[in-house]
Amino acid sequence: MDRTEESLAAALAGGDHQVNLGFDGLHARGQEFQSVVQALGATAFALAGDEENVRALFLPPLITAENIKKTNYLASMPNLAGEVESFQGNDKDHRRLVQALEEGGEGWEDFFSPTGLVNLPAACENLYPLYAGRLDEPVRVGLQSWCFRFEPSPDPMRMVSFRMAEQVYIGTEDGAAAHAHSWSGKLLGLLTDLGLDVDSESANDPFFGRAGRMLAGAQTENDLKHELTVQLYPTRRTALGSINLHGTMFGENFGITLADGSPAHSSCAGFGLERAAIALFAFHGMAVADWPAAVRDRLGLA
Amino acid sequence: MDRTEESLAAALAGGDHQVNLGFDGLHARGQEFQSVVQALGATAFALAGDEENVRALFLPPLITAENIKKTNYLASMPNLAGEVESFQGNDKDHRRLVQALEEGGEGWEDFFSPTGLVNLPAACENLYPLYAGRLDEPVRVGLQSWCFRFEPSPDPMRMVSFRMAEQVYIGTEDGAAAHAHSWSGKLLGLLTDLGLDVDSESANDPFFGRAGRMLAGAQTENDLKHELTVQLYPTRRTALGSINLHGTMFGENFGITLADGSPAHSSCAGFGLERAAIALFAFHGMAVADWPAAVRDRLGLA
Repeated sequence: MDRTEESLAAALAGGDHQVNLGFDGLHARGQEFQSVVQALGATAFALAGDEENVRALFLPPLITAENIKKTNYLASMPNLAGEVESFQGNDKDHRRLVQALEEGGEGWEDFFSPTGLVNLPAACENLYPLYAGRLDEPVRVGLQSWCFRFEPSPDPMRMVSFRMAEQVYIGTEDGAAAHAHSWSGKLLGLLTDLGLDVDSESANDPFFGRAGRMLAGAQTENDLKHELTVQLYPTRRTALGSINLHGTMFGENFGITLADGSPAHSSCAGFGLERAAIALFAFHGMAVADWPAAVRDRLGLA
Repeated sequence: MDRTEESLAAALAGGDHQVNLGFDGLHARGQEFQSVVQALGATAFALAGDEENVRALFLPPLITAENIKKTNYLASMPNLAGEVESFQGNDKDHRRLVQALEEGGEGWEDFFSPTGLVNLPAACENLYPLYAGRLDEPVRVGLQSWCFRFEPSPDPMRMVSFRMAEQVYIGTEDGAAAHAHSWSGKLLGLLTDLGLDVDSESANDPFFGRAGRMLAGAQTENDLKHELTVQLYPTRRTALGSINLHGTMFGENFGITLADGSPAHSSCAGFGLERAAIALFAFHGMAVADWPAAVRDRLGLA
């Protein structure tokens, strides 16, 4: 196997699946790729079929600064965050902005100021605020969203902007563990059905800096994160998704409690829709028509 | 008719079509609303059926600062723009950021700096850079994207983050005019088929400030923008979409030329997928099952 980031990017571009938009990790997608992404999202959500009261929510690609602060993301992974600023000045400021833009554009951002919005890093971070208060019963939600991570890379699998499908549970400690276990199996099963040789591996989030190394160590030690990985490149495996136990972090930070007043536990299981689609194109060929019939059937693709 | 922004928002929330995410104009959507949005996008794209060589592209919700600068958007509507900043400091800066966040969060954005990315304001702005150079034949592309406009409002029709379907032409002056005329008719026809009482009205963009009033006047005078509007509220009409003639602005700014070396003309016709969906729910009822059969058939909704 001699696949490289460059050869994969070239193959995706050749199939009209990826059109770079002038920035590493920022791509437009063609119709066939879009169809696979939609099919993956719908097929993953359908895995919830046997669970009770699963709600579907489709999110915009933004979150309020107030809510993202409560997730600790701005402290733990600020280098990946995307804080949104807009021009909020008067006519005089506007003339100076226009002058800065006309003189080559250096420093035009200085005229912009915070909007109170941040590009959404992970779908579930927009969910917890909706359930602040006391839960009558466990929450089970299937989410889809565009997500932002500022980690430009020539690797087609690492995008600054991508779609995520995620299944979130909020409720008891046992329920959160059971949800993580159940959805780990469901996603592993789906990806295996799709002909991908997926493994589950212990993992940690890319927390920032020296303080982050301690957080990552604790996450690994307590076995809180698993990734579903494939051998896309010869010398390393790549995650398609992950399963995460949050303990009571979101329950405490967003004021979500159980009937007895104790903070709710939560867990999530999600995967990157583009990552899964790219893996399918990489392993089965750049035209869906050439994929094994069983894979196309599983996704409901003609 | 006594519909208000408040009554419409309440009805949409009651139907699980809109869940506010803690910011005016930022909403999650339920499964039924999502199905209508997807059906509208697919149905609109299918209107291109009789045209040659129409390419479909699905865009991420971001554009490079370099490209957005060339559209003049940062000069003409900077108050609506969303410039994206990330933390790019070291461990010491990180400690100060964490301290600022812990002390109540004021000023944490000061530790963030420009990424070179901007939230995409309109789908077609990501398209022109892909066609820099000499065109062998006219370009016809159907686009879909999430777009950002920083204009928070309690009106459900005015969102800070929303999806747009857009048909773009790049080529000759006559071709651009014919495309605008043709797609104005197609979209008017589709929305009328969907039971919406749509009118085409001359319009202008909300350019910023004193300089902007001159731009808006010139746009109206030269009849460069039309909006497709519905009477959703008693005292005003609301645009669902617009048709725009750009002259050679994008051709010149992005270096797109015709075979004879002259700058290409362009035009676009697009509509807001959430706006159209909300209009359908408002006029036909908050459950798709109650809509007229002809409307459901036209959208391929069961």
